[in-house]
Amino acid sequence: MALVPLPLEKLLRQLGRLPGLGPRSAQRVALSLLQRPEKLGELQKSLAEVAAQLAICGRCGNLAFNHNAPPLCEVCSDTSRDSSVLCVVEGVADLWALERSGVFDGGYHVLGGVVSALSGVGPEDVRIPQLVRRVKDEGVSEVILALGASVDGQTTGHIILERLAGLGVNVTSLAKGMPVGAAVDYMDEGTLSLALQGRQKVA
Amino acid sequence: MALVPLPLEKLLRQLGRLPGLGPRSAQRVALSLLQRPEKLGELQKSLAEVAAQLAICGRCGNLAFNHNAPPLCEVCSDTSRDSSVLCVVEGVADLWALERSGVFDGGYHVLGGVVSALSGVGPEDVRIPQLVRRVKDEGVSEVILALGASVDGQTTGHIILERLAGLGVNVTSLAKGMPVGAAVDYMDEGTLSLALQGRQKVA
Repeated sequence: MALVPLPLEKLLRQLGRLPGLGPRSAQRVALSLLQRPEKLGELQKSLAEVAAQLAICGRCGNLAFNHNAPPLCEVCSDTSRDSSVLCVVEGVADLWALERSGVFDGGYHVLGGVVSALSGVGPEDVRIPQLVRRVKDEGVSEVILALGASVDGQTTGHIILERLAGLGVNVTSLAKGMPVGAAVDYMDEGTLSLALQGRQKVA
Repeated sequence: MALVPLPLEKLLRQLGRLPGLGPRSAQRVALSLLQRPEKLGELQKSLAEVAAQLAICGRCGNLAFNHNAPPLCEVCSDTSRDSSVLCVVEGVADLWALERSGVFDGGYHVLGGVVSALSGVGPEDVRIPQLVRRVKDEGVSEVILALGASVDGQTTGHIILERLAGLGVNVTSLAKGMPVGAAVDYMDEGTLSLALQGRQKVA
């Protein structure tokens, strides 16, 4: 056999393409699993369970249990939430973070990524058309953009703004400024300039 | 359902315990797999293949194909190699690195870890008893310690040295000094002091 046996090589290639993992960390992960076959078995079982039981909510892109057909997530099936306000997030982890804050009770729209020219991700790859359809069909009055302050996040925001133009929906964006607990002298110039521009009257 | 559905929570816990992954990177990996079910399927398949086809060599601890019974790796089954010299390494990745250098044609002994008081790993957990047995049974004349220059690696080396005392086997260790391509002014004091102590006559 070659130095790295073929089945392992395939596994290494797949692990190395996961976010945050590269060739070396994929190697560490795979070899540690091979050293402990019971862990490898457990991981196989968990992956199978997740694959069988979870799906993407057909409406908003959040995680949903598969036994609802079509899969509808808990947020979408909760009729007490205000479905006229949609909060647009990049991924499910962002939705979790907003839900933890406990102040938002509208609906979500999970893009499943951001538009990125460098990575070749276009607006059609990230559920922007689905967002436009929802705004048209569901009587949405406000779309809140809760996207990262990165170049790709802001580009995605602009594209959504363009696509929603003329549909008579209010589009807002998360406030930008000082995070809670931050010290002024540790803030970067960009944040300080946005915080100054958006200053609020206190007295 | 709770914010994080139960099957996913289990997967997150298992992923987060893999080397190099923590809670956040486990979350990124799991959510990216859920966004692309075909990748999740491929990964399941590869893990199953690796689990079915690969095993640990019963003699040296290297990876071996499962269809040999008992599993014997390619190095151990190669009769042209000098089995009287054993190179002790921490993991399979170290064996790969030494094989790539192409200068060693003896056998290996893969410990599958190093002794670490902090992580609660004792000498019995890392195939040191198996090494002692091999030295006794296989007519080994030299054991080369190829362990990392970390505290745990060096501790493991000392323990092996103790265990092999009185067995009449030569124990050597990889040379310590300047790596190829290194600049003197970038070297740390420890390496420079070892390189000076181990200086070699050139003329």
